[in-house]
Amino acid sequence: MTATSTHETEIVADPKVPLVRIIREFDAPPEKVFRAHTDPELIVQWLGPRDLTMTIDHFDCRSGGSYRYLHRRGDEEYGFNGCFHEVRPSELIVQTFTFEGYPDSVALERMVFEDLGNGRTRIVATSLVDSFEGRDAFVASGMETGVREGYERLDELLAR
Amino acid sequence: MTATSTHETEIVADPKVPLVRIIREFDAPPEKVFRAHTDPELIVQWLGPRDLTMTIDHFDCRSGGSYRYLHRRGDEEYGFNGCFHEVRPSELIVQTFTFEGYPDSVALERMVFEDLGNGRTRIVATSLVDSFEGRDAFVASGMETGVREGYERLDELLAR
Repeated sequence: MTATSTHETEIVADPKVPLVRIIREFDAPPEKVFRAHTDPELIVQWLGPRDLTMTIDHFDCRSGGSYRYLHRRGDEEYGFNGCFHEVRPSELIVQTFTFEGYPDSVALERMVFEDLGNGRTRIVATSLVDSFEGRDAFVASGMETGVREGYERLDELLAR
Repeated sequence: MTATSTHETEIVADPKVPLVRIIREFDAPPEKVFRAHTDPELIVQWLGPRDLTMTIDHFDCRSGGSYRYLHRRGDEEYGFNGCFHEVRPSELIVQTFTFEGYPDSVALERMVFEDLGNGRTRIVATSLVDSFEGRDAFVASGMETGVREGYERLDELLAR
């Protein structure tokens, strides 16, 4: 890839509630950014760091649907699953999220797609858990690297 | 009904995180208490206060399923919906919950069925939201009355 402009990814641990907020802009309209989050054939091309391969078990992205996917690196395999509470096209996704290595830790995730005009979109994504310890462990787990690298891959996909 | 023993329902607002915890014991084994929460024909007989009539739109209580139900009182109608993140028979239900009057307020609910032996069960149910204001408004909304009255009706159902 050449000359892909890449925006900063802002990752903030909320001081009052056990929530992480991720804010990121993209040089593509909400419809396109939303589709990259909901079409299984697109999401496998960018979600997560570059050295992991993503495989989808199922991905039924509609209100009341559910998903499960795997990330693999050599012999390592990481499973993730959840249900879609609400999906409003090009606007909002509210879902649950569990890393299967810690099946009793469940996050409530909310992703808002803001139309900035001129073919640009801001995503504000929050992840809420039931303890500050759990939230801080999640942030310390290296998720920042995966999120930033995933969004750089998304920039590349959107620029094609 | 005569001589139905009724247990206290403990409702606690957590001081650290925006969560409500409800604790209640039942004189029935976990299998039976769990079934009353997951069988649509049983749940309509007890969930909520006595003066509301419950109707189920759909109730697919399995990991990755979803639900929607209505409570009616005369001309008033209240809709509720969510998805089931995980359902472990007689042990655990993790689900989302929205009152359709406030569609952007979503709670993450977790219900654990503890086997106390001798045909008794303790339910520990938590409801997590993303702000203390939202949690406190939920507690102040009169939910306590509905929860206590619903569990009294559940006592009656389990005693039949």
